[in-house]
Amino acid sequence: MISFARGAPAPECLAVELLADCARAAVERDPSVLAYGPGGGYGPLREWLAARHGVEPARIIVTNGGLQGISFVFDELLARRPGRVLVEGPTYDRPLKLLARAGAEVATLPMDDEGLDPDALERELAAGASFLYTIPTFQNPSGRTLSTERRRRVVELAAAHGVPVLEDDPYGLVRYEGEAPPSLHELGGEQVLYASSFSKTVAPGLRIGWFVLPADLAAAIEARAVETYISPPFLTQAAVFELVDRGAFEPNLERIIGLLRERRDAMLAALERELGGRATWSRPDGGYFVWAELPTETGPLLARAEAAGVSFVKGSDFFPGPGGERAARLAFSYESPSAIDEGVSLLASLV
Amino acid sequence: MISFARGAPAPECLAVELLADCARAAVERDPSVLAYGPGGGYGPLREWLAARHGVEPARIIVTNGGLQGISFVFDELLARRPGRVLVEGPTYDRPLKLLARAGAEVATLPMDDEGLDPDALERELAAGASFLYTIPTFQNPSGRTLSTERRRRVVELAAAHGVPVLEDDPYGLVRYEGEAPPSLHELGGEQVLYASSFSKTVAPGLRIGWFVLPADLAAAIEARAVETYISPPFLTQAAVFELVDRGAFEPNLERIIGLLRERRDAMLAALERELGGRATWSRPDGGYFVWAELPTETGPLLARAEAAGVSFVKGSDFFPGPGGERAARLAFSYESPSAIDEGVSLLASLV
Repeated sequence: MISFARGAPAPECLAVELLADCARAAVERDPSVLAYGPGGGYGPLREWLAARHGVEPARIIVTNGGLQGISFVFDELLARRPGRVLVEGPTYDRPLKLLARAGAEVATLPMDDEGLDPDALERELAAGASFLYTIPTFQNPSGRTLSTERRRRVVELAAAHGVPVLEDDPYGLVRYEGEAPPSLHELGGEQVLYASSFSKTVAPGLRIGWFVLPADLAAAIEARAVETYISPPFLTQAAVFELVDRGAFEPNLERIIGLLRERRDAMLAALERELGGRATWSRPDGGYFVWAELPTETGPLLARAEAAGVSFVKGSDFFPGPGGERAARLAFSYESPSAIDEGVSLLASLV
Repeated sequence: MISFARGAPAPECLAVELLADCARAAVERDPSVLAYGPGGGYGPLREWLAARHGVEPARIIVTNGGLQGISFVFDELLARRPGRVLVEGPTYDRPLKLLARAGAEVATLPMDDEGLDPDALERELAAGASFLYTIPTFQNPSGRTLSTERRRRVVELAAAHGVPVLEDDPYGLVRYEGEAPPSLHELGGEQVLYASSFSKTVAPGLRIGWFVLPADLAAAIEARAVETYISPPFLTQAAVFELVDRGAFEPNLERIIGLLRERRDAMLAALERELGGRATWSRPDGGYFVWAELPTETGPLLARAEAAGVSFVKGSDFFPGPGGERAARLAFSYESPSAIDEGVSLLASLV
């Protein structure tokens, strides 16, 4: 099976020997990683992240992967500000499941190639909202990036309505070309809660997400973390701190970007060759995903595709209600360029 | 500050060099620990635990420390069987906080030196309950162990009323003398959900708890884990698998038991010398804790003790309502035998 479903890095992206040595060194350097400690994460890593973001370390919370922290932030915001949650349509399916379990009402904001529609955001904010959850850069699942002009408008609107924004940014550093726009957090300050992760820049199995939060919210999330699991596992966080402390983060990221850029290029070239004129798709400058709009319903297509040996995630999985029926999320992160080429040919033959 | 508050192992219990090498070896042996994987835990560790418990690996769920899994099990059981939760009085304070956050009604079962009172359990079961949460061996906070006769009665009563039991057993293997009684899980089968942890037998900072559950409940808890954090961190779980696969688990545990037995002995000897005739206390054959009943209220005592340089946890923290006002949980796990001796003298001078 050629998988365009797995939103995971190709195995060669994982720096096995480097991380094995960093894990060993981390324990030897600081045996306290084997003991209980702060619920908000490993001190030296929090300090490194705090310096990168220009905030106090207490405002950084490191969680067992980004999703765990998103779950805490959702629960805390919904407790503080009951109301509808605004999300992009489409958006990452796992947060939608967390919101469904929490019983939250969800409203979707339509998107185009420049990201979410700020006029729709303005209307929904006027109707009342608990918070906005957005993935503005190389979005999962669409691969789209919110334009800088819209970013300014989004933070202005959120501030005008006093509505917090949770900016989920795991892909931002995985950029193949072009200049990075400012983050919403950089533009909007404490109105914007910022989330990111080492899953795409180091390794997903380490499960290390981080959050930059206003001090009172950081304290509340740390309290939730302590109540839920006392401390996170420090060994993995200390292994990543060892890696960054050795100056290996940027070179390793450049290596990953090189491996993934080839895959993005292979997918865009194969789509143009096989589906040019018959379908449309996003052309991301980074991240893992292409969003394709096909001339056929992707639910039935998926069953035929899997039978033929290629998988993807159907677009409707990324909407809380109707939507995405003719769309597909195609992840180019996992397969080799040649497998991507073959997989797109196979898929196109079924469209 | 001499801490009888920290329910944590003394630093010398942590096998730093061994775990550093196991972490390195685990990554080199199986680079898939750096990738996403099953939400229920690292496959080889689940298989090892399954063999120890004589169950299928799918019935083992490995979580980010025991408390994280307790939180999942509480939520799942309360969703399936709304009702009162029965706990020992006193009981571990962190689960009480999880139950309070879940809005659960909690009823306490009185205890004596043989553990919870089965007649009280029978009355409470007759009045209706969602489930029983119990720590039958070297209980936190009391250090008490449920007698074998009472264990048989507890599982009979639970089966007769069709009420599940969550047996939390992190301390059972940390035994300084005597024969281990059968676990409730061994006596009661699938009526009893079993929880344990590597926190006391390897290292708490690794955050590895495990659960032995009926197949349907295991699947539901694994689904909650996936929804909450996709996968747990595999590196730490694989490091512990490497340690057990090397045959190092039992020798390391014997070493830990030797270190902690000295501390238990130091505490019991100092209590006898300093408070004999003025107070009563439990005499645990294992675990971390002594429960002392003092002739004074321990809330005001704690403030004076901390000012004098010794800390403990006051008994009332371990009851959801009134109770424990003259009791103290004294952890002997963290301090050296000489510090324990000094700390008990100091404390006794304030009683």
